[in-house]
Amino acid sequence: MATTRPSANPEADPRVKAVFDDIRATRKTDFINNLWRHLAFDPALLERTWAEVKAVMGTPSALDPLTKELIYIAVSVANACSYCVHSHTAAAKAKGMTPAQHGELLAIVALAGKTNQLATALQVPVDEVFDALR
Amino acid sequence: MATTRPSANPEADPRVKAVFDDIRATRKTDFINNLWRHLAFDPALLERTWAEVKAVMGTPSALDPLTKELIYIAVSVANACSYCVHSHTAAAKAKGMTPAQHGELLAIVALAGKTNQLATALQVPVDEVFDALR
Amino acid sequence: MATTRPSANPEADPRVKAVFDDIRATRKTDFINNLWRHLAFDPALLERTWAEVKAVMGTPSALDPLTKELIYIAVSVANACSYCVHSHTAAAKAKGMTPAQHGELLAIVALAGKTNQLATALQVPVDEVFDALR
Amino acid sequence: MATTRPSANPEADPRVKAVFDDIRATRKTDFINNLWRHLAFDPALLERTWAEVKAVMGTPSALDPLTKELIYIAVSVANACSYCVHSHTAAAKAKGMTPAQHGELLAIVALAGKTNQLATALQVPVDEVFDALR
Amino acid sequence: MATTRPSANPEADPRVKAVFDDIRATRKTDFINNLWRHLAFDPALLERTWAEVKAVMGTPSALDPLTKELIYIAVSVANACSYCVHSHTAAAKAKGMTPAQHGELLAIVALAGKTNQLATALQVPVDEVFDALR
Amino acid sequence: MATTRPSANPEADPRVKAVFDDIRATRKTDFINNLWRHLAFDPALLERTWAEVKAVMGTPSALDPLTKELIYIAVSVANACSYCVHSHTAAAKAKGMTPAQHGELLAIVALAGKTNQLATALQVPVDEVFDALR
Repeated sequence: MATTRPSANPEADPRVKAVFDDIRATRKTDFINNLWRHLAFDPALLERTWAEVKAVMGTPSALDPLTKELIYIAVSVANACSYCVHSHTAAAKAKGMTPAQHGELLAIVALAGKTNQLATALQVPVDEVFDALR
Repeated sequence: MATTRPSANPEADPRVKAVFDDIRATRKTDFINNLWRHLAFDPALLERTWAEVKAVMGTPSALDPLTKELIYIAVSVANACSYCVHSHTAAAKAKGMTPAQHGELLAIVALAGKTNQLATALQVPVDEVFDALR
Repeated sequence: MATTRPSANPEADPRVKAVFDDIRATRKTDFINNLWRHLAFDPALLERTWAEVKAVMGTPSALDPLTKELIYIAVSVANACSYCVHSHTAAAKAKGMTPAQHGELLAIVALAGKTNQLATALQVPVDEVFDALR
Repeated sequence: MATTRPSANPEADPRVKAVFDDIRATRKTDFINNLWRHLAFDPALLERTWAEVKAVMGTPSALDPLTKELIYIAVSVANACSYCVHSHTAAAKAKGMTPAQHGELLAIVALAGKTNQLATALQVPVDEVFDALR
Repeated sequence: MATTRPSANPEADPRVKAVFDDIRATRKTDFINNLWRHLAFDPALLERTWAEVKAVMGTPSALDPLTKELIYIAVSVANACSYCVHSHTAAAKAKGMTPAQHGELLAIVALAGKTNQLATALQVPVDEVFDALR
Repeated sequence: MATTRPSANPEADPRVKAVFDDIRATRKTDFINNLWRHLAFDPALLERTWAEVKAVMGTPSALDPLTKELIYIAVSVANACSYCVHSHTAAAKAKGMTPAQHGELLAIVALAGKTNQLATALQVPVDEVFDALR
């Protein structure tokens, strides 16, 4: 199910075509996953979202590509976004995530979920030493 | 403010003392941060939680220590746990997180927060190719 | 899938029948959507929930009906409630939401999701000027 | 800090006074906690919210009063609502929650936070046997 | 759909077999639900998770078994974990949850969801009297 | 408290100065709120975030400016972002939000929080009629 029906021919819109072409060129594949097809009904939103994904995830930077995907999965799990957990887990595997790394990612995400609840339940005061404004 | 008042002398309980001693030995510091002081009212919960933190975060493994802290921060942000964001950001800095890496972590967390909302709002169907059960 | 099985004949209970009749009369349709069918196992909960929906969403007020649905969708997305995103997106379309408005709603929800994560990750202190208690 | 400034004399409004009087009579105390003072700017919202709290939490029912508070705390922790965690933890203590019960509540909330993340990260398919619609 | 494919014969790994055997013995059934099958790719994570579930949920303690399940469901709902809501609702029914108790659980969870949003929207200051550090 | 310490003179960086100048010009005020000061440690993240805020919130569009702020507040409440709730509630008041509209916004956000929990707890199947892919 979905809340919008993608156009049968989204690339009839030249702005959509330009984004899809850039996705294909950047990822070196003809496959356009559903998120982009569903976003195409609003070309400005599609353009802004893809530009940000490309800038943040697709540009060489201070963190390596696999680490970036692990962080992306962690947020998606905490936000309970089923589509995002699926798509970024697949992306992490494509970038070399091993089963050991996957298991360890889950262990950290689960532990953080647990201690987050404890700290919130106890309303633990933040230690002065953690304050960057000191 | 907090929902429990830590004991003035938590280490009078030998189970608490054993955990605090292990925290000090493992971290090579006398500092015991507030989460552990507030958890000490329930020694079994304190023991289980510290054992898991030590096993997941303090043992050499498939992910390097800084990557593990970045993932921990990401989950804590998504769960809106103020204490955890503060303590794990401090821990990541202690493990060498540079401002460039910090900025990039935030960029990924923010982007994931954004696309998580889009995928959920559109209720995008998961692409078949992402299914590990195929 | 579901966690409760709706009764085959929920309107055998006069309290359920009264609520369903009011839903049909208020909405001018015979269609009773699944949320109400699943809530019918607890007539008191059904009554209280429908009374509140009718009072908040169905009464002329300071905000126009479409704006109210947009706010409802926004909360449902942030809470990752699949049923609610579907039902209120359909309701907003029925009340005249255009594709341009839909795209703009998603852009705001996505932007808020992004800046929420940034403000939480940075633990930005609230500016004094924003405090209504000043 | 807050986003609204409560009136200096909220009970000048007879609808607010009626609710505050009922809170005092129901709880057998003169203390009106801040949530109600801040809600008083919208008498209809105040009335509806108090009526629901009284009906759900203050009426003899299938669950005992302490169990109801424990469930309330659990939701408030998962939603990261600081005010609610504080106020309902205080209420649970007033209703007899022992430190052992408090510790156990936290252990369950923490464990659920952990397994919730695992199930979401793995996107575990729901076992057929759990489906009430079978 | 899922993000990992469980092994066809997970019990070929003796650590997995030991956990599955203990689940069967503890629960007095041959049924192993999907969460454990999907966790089996990482035996250490499986062991730690089951050990915690058994210690927290399966040991006689200050809270009765049904109350513990109700708290588990409440957290799972607030975290929007579909698998967990299904599995723990089934577990609560198996432990004797009546429809009246189920309806009342939902009423509390729903009310807490509502007042959580109100307290957060108003940014209500925590009353001094609720502070355990006083 | 905060996790980063803003530079004493952030505008020494010309990229930061350009963004701050544009914020001042766009908003017709010298006031730069803390979110931007704290984001300034990463000029690329600052630029991208401000550009998106300006494009989505500051450009005449299909939704009026006040409606956009109400949606922003709704998401911020559901995500429990204290800073965002404060800053966008202040912004909505500056754009003309009346107390009646504020109360109604809260009523909708609270109701959505409540029905979100109910639909998730019941795992209500989405009605076919709500599916845009039909």
